[in-house]
Amino acid sequence: MTAVGIDAIEIRTGKLKLDLAETFAPQKGEDPEKYTKGIGLEQSSFPDVYEDIVTMGANAAKSLMDRKGLVPDDIGRIDVATESAFDNSKPVSTYIAGCLEQVYEGDFHHANKGERKFACLAGTQSIDDAYNWIRAGRNRGRAALVVATDTALYARGDPGEATQGAGAVAMLITEEPSVVELSTEQGYGSADETDFLKPNQQFPSVDGKRSVQVYLARMREALEDYESVAGDTHPDDFDYIPFHTPFPGMVRKAALLGYRHMTRGTDVEDALESEIGRQPREEAYDSWDDYEEAIRGYMDELKETEQYREWYERVIDPTINISSQIGNWYTGSVHIARLSALKTAAEEGKEMAGKRMLVGSYGSGAQAEIHAETVRDGWREEVTALDVDDQLARRYDLSYDEYELVHDVHNHDKEVDVEEFTHPDGEFVFTGWGRMNERKYEYVE
Amino acid sequence: MTAVGIDAIEIRTGKLKLDLAETFAPQKGEDPEKYTKGIGLEQSSFPDVYEDIVTMGANAAKSLMDRKGLVPDDIGRIDVATESAFDNSKPVSTYIAGCLEQVYEGDFHHANKGERKFACLAGTQSIDDAYNWIRAGRNRGRAALVVATDTALYARGDPGEATQGAGAVAMLITEEPSVVELSTEQGYGSADETDFLKPNQQFPSVDGKRSVQVYLARMREALEDYESVAGDTHPDDFDYIPFHTPFPGMVRKAALLGYRHMTRGTDVEDALESEIGRQPREEAYDSWDDYEEAIRGYMDELKETEQYREWYERVIDPTINISSQIGNWYTGSVHIARLSALKTAAEEGKEMAGKRMLVGSYGSGAQAEIHAETVRDGWREEVTALDVDDQLARRYDLSYDEYELVHDVHNHDKEVDVEEFTHPDGEFVFTGWGRMNERKYEYVE
Repeated sequence: MTAVGIDAIEIRTGKLKLDLAETFAPQKGEDPEKYTKGIGLEQSSFPDVYEDIVTMGANAAKSLMDRKGLVPDDIGRIDVATESAFDNSKPVSTYIAGCLEQVYEGDFHHANKGERKFACLAGTQSIDDAYNWIRAGRNRGRAALVVATDTALYARGDPGEATQGAGAVAMLITEEPSVVELSTEQGYGSADETDFLKPNQQFPSVDGKRSVQVYLARMREALEDYESVAGDTHPDDFDYIPFHTPFPGMVRKAALLGYRHMTRGTDVEDALESEIGRQPREEAYDSWDDYEEAIRGYMDELKETEQYREWYERVIDPTINISSQIGNWYTGSVHIARLSALKTAAEEGKEMAGKRMLVGSYGSGAQAEIHAETVRDGWREEVTALDVDDQLARRYDLSYDEYELVHDVHNHDKEVDVEEFTHPDGEFVFTGWGRMNERKYEYVE
Repeated sequence: MTAVGIDAIEIRTGKLKLDLAETFAPQKGEDPEKYTKGIGLEQSSFPDVYEDIVTMGANAAKSLMDRKGLVPDDIGRIDVATESAFDNSKPVSTYIAGCLEQVYEGDFHHANKGERKFACLAGTQSIDDAYNWIRAGRNRGRAALVVATDTALYARGDPGEATQGAGAVAMLITEEPSVVELSTEQGYGSADETDFLKPNQQFPSVDGKRSVQVYLARMREALEDYESVAGDTHPDDFDYIPFHTPFPGMVRKAALLGYRHMTRGTDVEDALESEIGRQPREEAYDSWDDYEEAIRGYMDELKETEQYREWYERVIDPTINISSQIGNWYTGSVHIARLSALKTAAEEGKEMAGKRMLVGSYGSGAQAEIHAETVRDGWREEVTALDVDDQLARRYDLSYDEYELVHDVHNHDKEVDVEEFTHPDGEFVFTGWGRMNERKYEYVE
């Protein structure tokens, strides 16, 4: 069967940054390590006044098309995943296509455009749609362009304020891809949850504690579902495990849960027995609560073992390098985690072709999806072609007062007039509203 | 290749109705025929105070599951298409699954849930996703549940006010389906248009005249794209052609355009030559405007020919029977048109198995999709099992004052307390808001 997967990736960060240790923590009168160590975040990206989900998505897509030498006729569908949409009817993909048509010969008139919403999960769902479309034989040799784009803002003063972020990830889905092949097998863990939602509101209602529990519960369910079709997993099967990363601290919890689950009944559990005993088994406990408490105790000890720490450093830590500098990009987050791992591998001169990754996506509301990916021969060339470090380094470093202004600029309920902090240069920019209240865009040379 | 398509359909209308001729026109001081003849609408459906897109969708889905004897484990994905979402993050499919889990044993924890948005087009896009998922071999023998659900409200006094509507269509997508098989071939006509949008607003901004032009332009583009993969079309190829039906008058225009396009260079054009001449050819005109004017002149005459009128009565008219009684259901509209055609065929004792339909879906913003469907042996049993006529007949007939109250109830910016007009009976109902501003639902016996 022909491989189908991700052929190319480009990212576009919001061009501003808020330093959590240097700027945010002092203003809040807090220890910077609350952010850098506690939740694992150093900086967040924000959009400049002329940026939004359309410009970031279109700019990432243009970089990708230019680098790969693509023209509109090469693209058979454009799917946008977002939970920051500003229109209840017209999809963001039409705006992004409209931007791209300003700068390319030809058009996307025969490309299927869509928009998917499921909190932070929809980027992966859009990749799945593209995979299925190709496998169904409907692509006519064309590629799918998937754009995960979000501006993740919380109400000022909300506990989530430290985990904000803004950026877009564009991905090209093709046959015989250069970066990774996607597994046909998928696992889902999904339930009607009230952990994080935005009922007719731009900023989320969040139950932080419940959100962490739901993330872990759905992820475990998804892993079990994945194993029911793909067979048992083992930590040695995967060189990296990129998870959805609302903040790196969440991934630390998910990784420990995953490691415990995957090592149950394996040589790893045997090897650890003399140090921390065997994993608790449900049948040995009178109640579910007692069993859960025993599991928590086992995990507290597991976390400190040399085996786990070595595995975490090698398999998980490389996935959060970028996230710690940009914050939560919602739909793009898990795709940043994958990229972060591959970028680290390239920097370390590691050979990844043929190696496998397990990818754990998640969206509040709530659903986790697990699938596997096999790295392809062209991965290194693709990953080293990206300008991630440059983009991050070039961001304008906001003062706290400036951060407050930027937050207001992107608040749909406020009308403020703020000067731009950076100068647009060879990119799409937001230029104002049209007569039907539509947002308008132009390409600036 | 195994057939994949629609195995079962159920609809759920809002339980209230507004009679345009008897109630709306007199209040506006207008001739009732402006609605019944002009735009072709007699009545619109509205949701009662305890109904919304979740209850209508969940009630349609429950009817479908009950009639087909399905349990949650039979369903591998639940996709909701809507442009009436009330949450910017949590998808409507999770709410609908949560409703269904109240009444069935088991759960949908391993079903992939999604939400798609592209104005009125997303219902068809969701069916396409389900088709592709099955063809990609990812369904594990399970079916997809697609729910197209909308409450189509316009601002009071808006020209679109007469074309409102509310209802849900639930469809089961399977291998070896009972109702129709979907073609692999698809045609798209898509452009970044500002004809109808809802920028951070519940009620649409509409450019009515432009919207009609864009519908026709995108539909023609989609038909040409479809023909590029499936070969030329001919009016005799299809027993019915269901179009997206914002109001039946729009379909009259689309049908004439389609007939003109499909008959060009065929025996039909030859047969009509002595009566109205041959179709204008672009190369015979100095300018595009002159050509377009000649085409309009030809279509004015074509419309009055016996051939066209007979074809319209036979192929198009049966598709708008239901729409004229319910108004615009947005994402559900084209699926109502298909059902209307099959229902008429069943009532007329026509045999449809093996016959083909061409389906023209459309969403503002804008994109048209054309695909073909082949009717399956089980179609009659499925279609005659539906209670469409009963549901429509049972609707509460609103006075104009009551209509005004109902409009306010469903206006997100108003808080009004209005008594229900009907009594819930064996259905899901909206019961109020939870602590995180989430909407809550219960099943009423």
